[in-house]
Amino acid sequence: MPRGRFITIEGGEGAGKSTNADFVLQLIKDRGLDGVATREPGGTPLAEEVRSMLLAERDETVDPLTETLLIFAARAQHLAKVIEPNLQAGRWVVCERFTDSTFAYQAGGRGVERRVIERLAELVHRHCWPDLTLYLDVPVEVALPRLAGRGLDRFEREHKAFFERVRAVYVERADAVDRIVSIDASRELDTVKRDIGAALSRFIETG
Amino acid sequence: MPRGRFITIEGGEGAGKSTNADFVLQLIKDRGLDGVATREPGGTPLAEEVRSMLLAERDETVDPLTETLLIFAARAQHLAKVIEPNLQAGRWVVCERFTDSTFAYQAGGRGVERRVIERLAELVHRHCWPDLTLYLDVPVEVALPRLAGRGLDRFEREHKAFFERVRAVYVERADAVDRIVSIDASRELDTVKRDIGAALSRFIETG
Repeated sequence: MPRGRFITIEGGEGAGKSTNADFVLQLIKDRGLDGVATREPGGTPLAEEVRSMLLAERDETVDPLTETLLIFAARAQHLAKVIEPNLQAGRWVVCERFTDSTFAYQAGGRGVERRVIERLAELVHRHCWPDLTLYLDVPVEVALPRLAGRGLDRFEREHKAFFERVRAVYVERADAVDRIVSIDASRELDTVKRDIGAALSRFIETG
Repeated sequence: MPRGRFITIEGGEGAGKSTNADFVLQLIKDRGLDGVATREPGGTPLAEEVRSMLLAERDETVDPLTETLLIFAARAQHLAKVIEPNLQAGRWVVCERFTDSTFAYQAGGRGVERRVIERLAELVHRHCWPDLTLYLDVPVEVALPRLAGRGLDRFEREHKAFFERVRAVYVERADAVDRIVSIDASRELDTVKRDIGAALSRFIETG
């Protein structure tokens, strides 16, 4: 049984990650491949408990290193219980957010040293990086109005400058890391999907 | 304002850590020093939420690396909100359990590589190790009956072989690390307290 491939969908708030993750899973299934969709932080009952802790509004300020360690704790559980077993069973795994989010939000947004995130990634998933990452890029001034009407969590309540720092790290990584394909997600959804389909086809046919 | 000193109380289940932590705090106050008592995992509302997650019985098995990362997440929060601010304000901090517990339980008990715990300690508290650690040593066959009648948590329900591995790491570290003083806590409480008082006096007078 060949190992499945690991595809992550990245981007800021309001970039359309959930919609496009569903779309990627459908494209995979349309090709007769077996696949599952999941998300971070979360993906197992325990990891979803950690997600709730992370998103909850609370009086106690959360130390940025605490936040980073909680995310990697949830990630270790998700890898052990969902991502690795599925990849080993030959299934493709489509995951909303992974360590690129941690670089963007905790290093870019919160100011945690990138070296800390690199070391945690090394401890937790040295042998399991995504094979393909679709980064949905949207300017902050386009993305923020998309959140209107949602109940906002502890991250979504951050200020514009925070999201600008998050996006800057995403854009920088998309340039620097080969597996990351940047997609302009400020356009109409059909146009975005067409580009996602094309990127996925290139990956499947050449990768 | 001179920095306070950081004292940890270590040992397996039923070793008498809480009782003796209270006693150590009292001895510190009797000398006219300012001090606070705290515990791990926990010590802040968020860190206590993590403690509850760790101790809860659940259907999902907790990956040992997840467990270790959750403990260090709680520790990072505890250091940022309680331990460091108190030490900086000149207060002595008496803490039940710290990273020696993680070596004993997660490396010894669960089989996590010690190197992983060393690296996490380096990331989280490179500059803040205990100044004195009182390790309350009790043979497993003496300690386990002390738990009778308590509602047991996810750790306390482990088997004798688990606790033997935990103790073996404690005993080895007490031998190898200068700051750790081993106290035979299988004896009468008054005798244990006398030894604790003597160890604390030596620390205060020479350290």
